[in-house]
Amino acid sequence: MERILATYYIETPLAPEKAAEVLAGEQSSGTFIAVPGETEELKQRFAARVEKVTPLETVSTPAMPGAASSSGQYNRAEIKVSWSVENFGYNLPVLISTLQGNLYELRQFTGLKLMDIELPPSYARYYKGPAFGIKGCRKLTNVQNRPLIGTIIKPSIGLTPQQTAGMVKTLVGAGIDFIKDDELLAESANSLFNDRVDAIMKVINAHADATGKKVMYAFNISGEIDEMLQRYEKIVKSGGTCAMVSINSVGMSGVKKICDQRQLAIHAHRNGWGMLTRHPLLGIDFRAYQHVWRLAGVDQLHVNGIQNKFWESDDSVVSSIKACLTPFYNHQPVLPVVSSGQWGGQAPETYRRTNTVDLLYMAGGGIMAHPMGAAAGVVALQQAWQAAVEGLSVEQAAATYKEFAESVKQFGKK
Amino acid sequence: MERILATYYIETPLAPEKAAEVLAGEQSSGTFIAVPGETEELKQRFAARVEKVTPLETVSTPAMPGAASSSGQYNRAEIKVSWSVENFGYNLPVLISTLQGNLYELRQFTGLKLMDIELPPSYARYYKGPAFGIKGCRKLTNVQNRPLIGTIIKPSIGLTPQQTAGMVKTLVGAGIDFIKDDELLAESANSLFNDRVDAIMKVINAHADATGKKVMYAFNISGEIDEMLQRYEKIVKSGGTCAMVSINSVGMSGVKKICDQRQLAIHAHRNGWGMLTRHPLLGIDFRAYQHVWRLAGVDQLHVNGIQNKFWESDDSVVSSIKACLTPFYNHQPVLPVVSSGQWGGQAPETYRRTNTVDLLYMAGGGIMAHPMGAAAGVVALQQAWQAAVEGLSVEQAAATYKEFAESVKQFGKK
Repeated sequence: MERILATYYIETPLAPEKAAEVLAGEQSSGTFIAVPGETEELKQRFAARVEKVTPLETVSTPAMPGAASSSGQYNRAEIKVSWSVENFGYNLPVLISTLQGNLYELRQFTGLKLMDIELPPSYARYYKGPAFGIKGCRKLTNVQNRPLIGTIIKPSIGLTPQQTAGMVKTLVGAGIDFIKDDELLAESANSLFNDRVDAIMKVINAHADATGKKVMYAFNISGEIDEMLQRYEKIVKSGGTCAMVSINSVGMSGVKKICDQRQLAIHAHRNGWGMLTRHPLLGIDFRAYQHVWRLAGVDQLHVNGIQNKFWESDDSVVSSIKACLTPFYNHQPVLPVVSSGQWGGQAPETYRRTNTVDLLYMAGGGIMAHPMGAAAGVVALQQAWQAAVEGLSVEQAAATYKEFAESVKQFGKK
Repeated sequence: MERILATYYIETPLAPEKAAEVLAGEQSSGTFIAVPGETEELKQRFAARVEKVTPLETVSTPAMPGAASSSGQYNRAEIKVSWSVENFGYNLPVLISTLQGNLYELRQFTGLKLMDIELPPSYARYYKGPAFGIKGCRKLTNVQNRPLIGTIIKPSIGLTPQQTAGMVKTLVGAGIDFIKDDELLAESANSLFNDRVDAIMKVINAHADATGKKVMYAFNISGEIDEMLQRYEKIVKSGGTCAMVSINSVGMSGVKKICDQRQLAIHAHRNGWGMLTRHPLLGIDFRAYQHVWRLAGVDQLHVNGIQNKFWESDDSVVSSIKACLTPFYNHQPVLPVVSSGQWGGQAPETYRRTNTVDLLYMAGGGIMAHPMGAAAGVVALQQAWQAAVEGLSVEQAAATYKEFAESVKQFGKK
């Protein structure tokens, strides 16, 4: 019978083997005292199994509140635990409850992070994965051999549909591939959703009619189920190609329902993610996280960016990009969305470390605040990526490309 | 215009006032460089506002990775930030993205925890809250003036519907008020959902016909939207009164959709919660957490228990119970579900600290492994609560009540 394998980074006052057994028991057939009905046969079939324990460093200060160590030492380790697919079949919420549920409350751990998940082939058959993914998003935007260049409408909140559409007009005229709502905006008092779609799609459709290029706009449909489905339909009817969902806030069941429609590319915003990953010994690593959302069918997924304005290290961002691009059987990979303080200067380093242009590269001020205007801002980003692929440094790129040189003057080295 | 107020516990290398402004900016109209279209008028209307900053202790080691402090000192503080309801109207996922979204990634914080939320009266009018709550759950189970006594079928996973129904038969015969599936079980290879409902409801309905008491069984419907709705309907048609949802795994939009049906009491399991709260300086406090789920309409919500088997302190559990019982305008309060290693010995302390019997008190082995049998186990729990209300200590209660005395011998002082 197929099994699902989860890797955890743990810290425990116990021997790591013992702690791993506690976790496996709690997440399959454990209770605090033996009760009737618990037979060896069903234990064998449904019990979680500790597959591997790799001891790591020992520390004297626990990372989090939990059981005290009698020796004063806390042992870190990597452990691998497996479950039979018979336990839950194909049910993502229950998979999540099993791999990342009550185990975080066990006092036997002073640190616990889900690092990775390995799923059997039948999961790739049961779930369709991204309806568009990298290939489909390239086709929708007609962009090949370079990252899609995108931007977020700022300020996040407060613009009227007409003001937003005005900015969209500037951006599509500038040659942008992708634009998105901010995650703080779904429908505000002065920007009703349908009005915003009407105003924006009028601009995008007119540009598409004139040039053949349909810019992808990710409208934030995050909300209740029926509302999301209505707004999804509004986008489809208006000729849009993408909907954005705040995946942590909407949650798995809601996101899956939206992805299942398979008519629009789904832009997955991971706001709230910091809460789930920021502590090195608590929560989830992106490698595990991206896996379940790809199963749900999101087409684009945020990964932060190199030299970002947030707390995340470049190593972590690189690892996240690679995770998105790692094949899952025959599924389309998800398009990594690079953002946060990006202006093009990070392109050479991003390319050097990931060796890919399969990205949606988002820049905010880097476009709208370019000294030569938004069109030059978009060109500068394309140049940055051209230079990156050519193996040029930021300095060499600036010496070669005029618009990019202006970006360096404006946004570089602050 | 009404505003929503959020309280955060923060740690920052900056002056707390400065860090608070960064948070407010990021979560309303912030970007890394000024762009056209940002007028003073819309800033005033849509900008988040720092309402209060209360400096607390200073530490020399940051709680989490973030910006380094030039002084080597990290300042802790409580801050209050408000948003106009005009920013999002009545949209829980967007409320969540605003109050607990990207802010967790800000490098200007080395610790950030959402502690509480204050919502304006219009939220109590727009959202209906729990369809049943404490009052409704008491009515459905016909239990007054004491906690509902409940249990979880164990082992968590592996029993057939017939085995489960057999245990249910013992339990309802024993006088239990409430039984639930484990969160690890929705539908397993040897326990199909519909078969389980049929087998269990046959027992529960027969018992109700014979005695007039309908035991509440929380069937775990966690899954995809359509599947959850089908299973919900199956429970309704079979005469059931409750459905269980793993709220973190299903997510807000899915849970809201289920609650909106308002025909069954919704048992909200918070598995995965440890990840969101276990670190003292990261994530969410239960006071804030329970608020949004009550708006969604859950009727019962897990709070762990006094002297539990998990990491959580008694203080934290007491605070959670009180949060559930705190009125929100005219909404029914949510029924706190007390569980984890409970066997009745914790009843006096639980009552002493919370002064309430408005609880669903869950015991596992405490019932099924009682030396005199399950019926005595249920009686022992009722006695424990009777004694608690009478102000007896565990020792005094054991001297008074025979079945409880056996519990003390079996489960006390390990």
